[in-house]
Amino acid sequence: MANSNRPSTAIAHIYRGTFVHATEQTALQILEDALLGVDTEGKIAFIGKGEELDKLSQTFGFSLSEVTQLAQHEFFMPGMVDTHIHAPQYSYAGTALDMPLLQWLNTYTFPVESRFKDLKFAQEVYTQVVRRTLRNGTTTACYFATIHTDASLLLGQITNDFGQRALVGKVCMDRNNSVKHYKETIQESQEETCRFIAELLDKKYPLVKPVVTPRFALSCTGALLGQLGAIAKNNNLHIQSHISENMEEVKLVKELFPESESYTDVYHKYNLLTDKTVMAHGCHLSDEELNLFRETGASLSHCPNSNISLCSGLLNVSNVLKHKVKLGLGTDVAGGYSASMLDAVRRTLDTCKFLTIQDPEHHTLPFEEVFRLATLGGSQALSLDNQTGNFEVGKDFDALRVNVAAPGGPIDLIQHEEPKILLEKFLNLGDDRNIMEVYVAGRRVVPFTEQTAE
Amino acid sequence: MANSNRPSTAIAHIYRGTFVHATEQTALQILEDALLGVDTEGKIAFIGKGEELDKLSQTFGFSLSEVTQLAQHEFFMPGMVDTHIHAPQYSYAGTALDMPLLQWLNTYTFPVESRFKDLKFAQEVYTQVVRRTLRNGTTTACYFATIHTDASLLLGQITNDFGQRALVGKVCMDRNNSVKHYKETIQESQEETCRFIAELLDKKYPLVKPVVTPRFALSCTGALLGQLGAIAKNNNLHIQSHISENMEEVKLVKELFPESESYTDVYHKYNLLTDKTVMAHGCHLSDEELNLFRETGASLSHCPNSNISLCSGLLNVSNVLKHKVKLGLGTDVAGGYSASMLDAVRRTLDTCKFLTIQDPEHHTLPFEEVFRLATLGGSQALSLDNQTGNFEVGKDFDALRVNVAAPGGPIDLIQHEEPKILLEKFLNLGDDRNIMEVYVAGRRVVPFTEQTAE
Ligand SMILES: [Zn+2]
Ligand SMILES: [Zn+2]
Repeated sequence: MANSNRPSTAIAHIYRGTFVHATEQTALQILEDALLGVDTEGKIAFIGKGEELDKLSQTFGFSLSEVTQLAQHEFFMPGMVDTHIHAPQYSYAGTALDMPLLQWLNTYTFPVESRFKDLKFAQEVYTQVVRRTLRNGTTTACYFATIHTDASLLLGQITNDFGQRALVGKVCMDRNNSVKHYKETIQESQEETCRFIAELLDKKYPLVKPVVTPRFALSCTGALLGQLGAIAKNNNLHIQSHISENMEEVKLVKELFPESESYTDVYHKYNLLTDKTVMAHGCHLSDEELNLFRETGASLSHCPNSNISLCSGLLNVSNVLKHKVKLGLGTDVAGGYSASMLDAVRRTLDTCKFLTIQDPEHHTLPFEEVFRLATLGGSQALSLDNQTGNFEVGKDFDALRVNVAAPGGPIDLIQHEEPKILLEKFLNLGDDRNIMEVYVAGRRVVPFTEQTAE
Repeated sequence: MANSNRPSTAIAHIYRGTFVHATEQTALQILEDALLGVDTEGKIAFIGKGEELDKLSQTFGFSLSEVTQLAQHEFFMPGMVDTHIHAPQYSYAGTALDMPLLQWLNTYTFPVESRFKDLKFAQEVYTQVVRRTLRNGTTTACYFATIHTDASLLLGQITNDFGQRALVGKVCMDRNNSVKHYKETIQESQEETCRFIAELLDKKYPLVKPVVTPRFALSCTGALLGQLGAIAKNNNLHIQSHISENMEEVKLVKELFPESESYTDVYHKYNLLTDKTVMAHGCHLSDEELNLFRETGASLSHCPNSNISLCSGLLNVSNVLKHKVKLGLGTDVAGGYSASMLDAVRRTLDTCKFLTIQDPEHHTLPFEEVFRLATLGGSQALSLDNQTGNFEVGKDFDALRVNVAAPGGPIDLIQHEEPKILLEKFLNLGDDRNIMEVYVAGRRVVPFTEQTAE
């Protein structure tokens, strides 16, 4: 696997030890005693075997003393990709989980989101959520902000300052909201979206991009959806929204858009289903709708904590994968109460197992497959897999240095375990205490508080 | 609420601040600016209001400088009660979750448990599990050990040394096990159970008691079940076992015990259903069987992580409560991968919500009710509610000092929150880092590793 071409840029870091990641071919590839080099641009320059050290050091021009050796219970894995998270809702994460979606939005969400007109409040919450998700190992996040352009730009700035890879969306919603002052006219929504995109792109943040963000069909007129589809197309931008989260919503969408064949068809009609689109949930999509996702290249974000917590429904992940729809995992804070992708991994497995309890013929995913969804799958769902998602030469080094036996951590080991067991224990039992270092594009980010800062 | 009688023993500690606990009348009682006194025997001597400080200090003879004031984001809650946990299985917690119960037992569990003949191995694992559960806030645990009497006695000693309240059971199993060397004859099982009970009682550990422990109906002959029922009755002992965990097991029990009307009737016939019995799972019990539980005073331990992870089934908690069966929560390590009762709380809520997704008429429990199950409910399920479970005068002080805003912890607060919100955030998002102090019978236990030791 070693790349034998002399690199165009110098090698900045070399790590030796166990690397685990997913590839197109295999859900979990374990590379023991591997050597990985990161160049000064943060890209993976080579991956080879420990025994190739001498050869690699000559080819890439580094000295043996520069090699960082991982310890016995350590491994590197790709940073995790949160394909759906509402940054402002982090302010009430872990509470307000006692009603279904549409009531929940009006009772809790819209009143809180309306507060983000206040940039000081936005600064506080956005700093917390970016720091927390990085600390939890989310190297890439796809954020919903609020309708407020300046606060949304601030979120972009904060992700850039912390060094997180992110898509950031100013939310668009021009109808059907019971909360006064938290709605736009179609003209405001369109103009502010254009301003948001232009100003964010103007910053030239290397890792942060705008994403066109209609909240969901019930919050937007068809006219606005059409304008947003056009904006995305004309600027070749990412798109995110919600789809088919709960049954009541599905029913209302059918009533509001009687001319569309399905919920998916609503977005399709307005050019919002592209190969740069990610739609959250999709619990109640028909097979025909999944086919439309595959045909357009649009992807789904599975947010199991949210789907359980709000009693929205259960996504049949196996069926989505069978339809070859691109799929990532999302926390959907704060419908999902946890801002940790490890929780998303666990709840994805739970959801599979609940489906198996309902129907013993249902095929439960192995944890390796869920690991793939949290990393490579997420990068594909966000159409960022040419830059991140696994340890391929040429991609950015987005990585977590995991120590399963971290002192003071949540995991006890009784004996030496093989890497696959270490990964399984980390996914089931680990937390941020096991994540010793977080890298985005080769740069170590330091999201930690005073207790754990370097 | 203040107890106005002069106490028979002196006051050792007085705490002032927020206390949250469950009572018979209310799932969540919040006492703000309360004063709680603990006497030198570790019992709660009084609970009063902050404004009663002067009066209480005179009545109970303490000086104002002895009062420990909780901080703004802190509260005391009762220690949690894990009503079902397999101590030896902690050695593989977080792994081996890819097959249903009966295959899982033969493939993973029995081979591992057979290793506990080795006391050195037992010492290591049992030390880890007691330290870990205490650190996670489990002040009372009801343990399955293995068939090995000496290792089971060692578990009793370790729980005593750490200061955890515990029921400890030497496992009995005289049939139907594919793993050589991990089975007893009926005579061995009966004699060793008697030796275990006698030797453990002889130690006179103040907080550790033996519990008669037939593994489950499939592992025991009727003759052994009858002998164990008699031993429990003659010595007035606790009893624990498993019941109706998955469908295959239920079917096999019917075949093995054709003379019994139901799975529950098997245990009932052998005098194993008493008001000191706790049975794990019960996912597939009929209403008639639940009635038999209520009539006998036997209780259930709900182990949602295990039921999900092994695809065993979903316990309808609301239905159990409707039948007035005593109910606690259990981790069921390692069928459940987490040794934290906070996980048991979360998975109980998930299970309720899954039932609501299946049937919108199903009533999802509020988190306050699940909080009650994890504390008072557990103490009732183990028939220990005269000693622990909540903050009633005369009970032992088994308590957790929780700081929701613990530095370096998993929770971010953006503003001042009321105690109910703080508790909800802790239950959904907290971990051992939020548990600043753990008390059992008034004594602060120090289960922490070097990082967090005093
Ligand atoms: Zn969402
Ligand atoms: Zn069990």
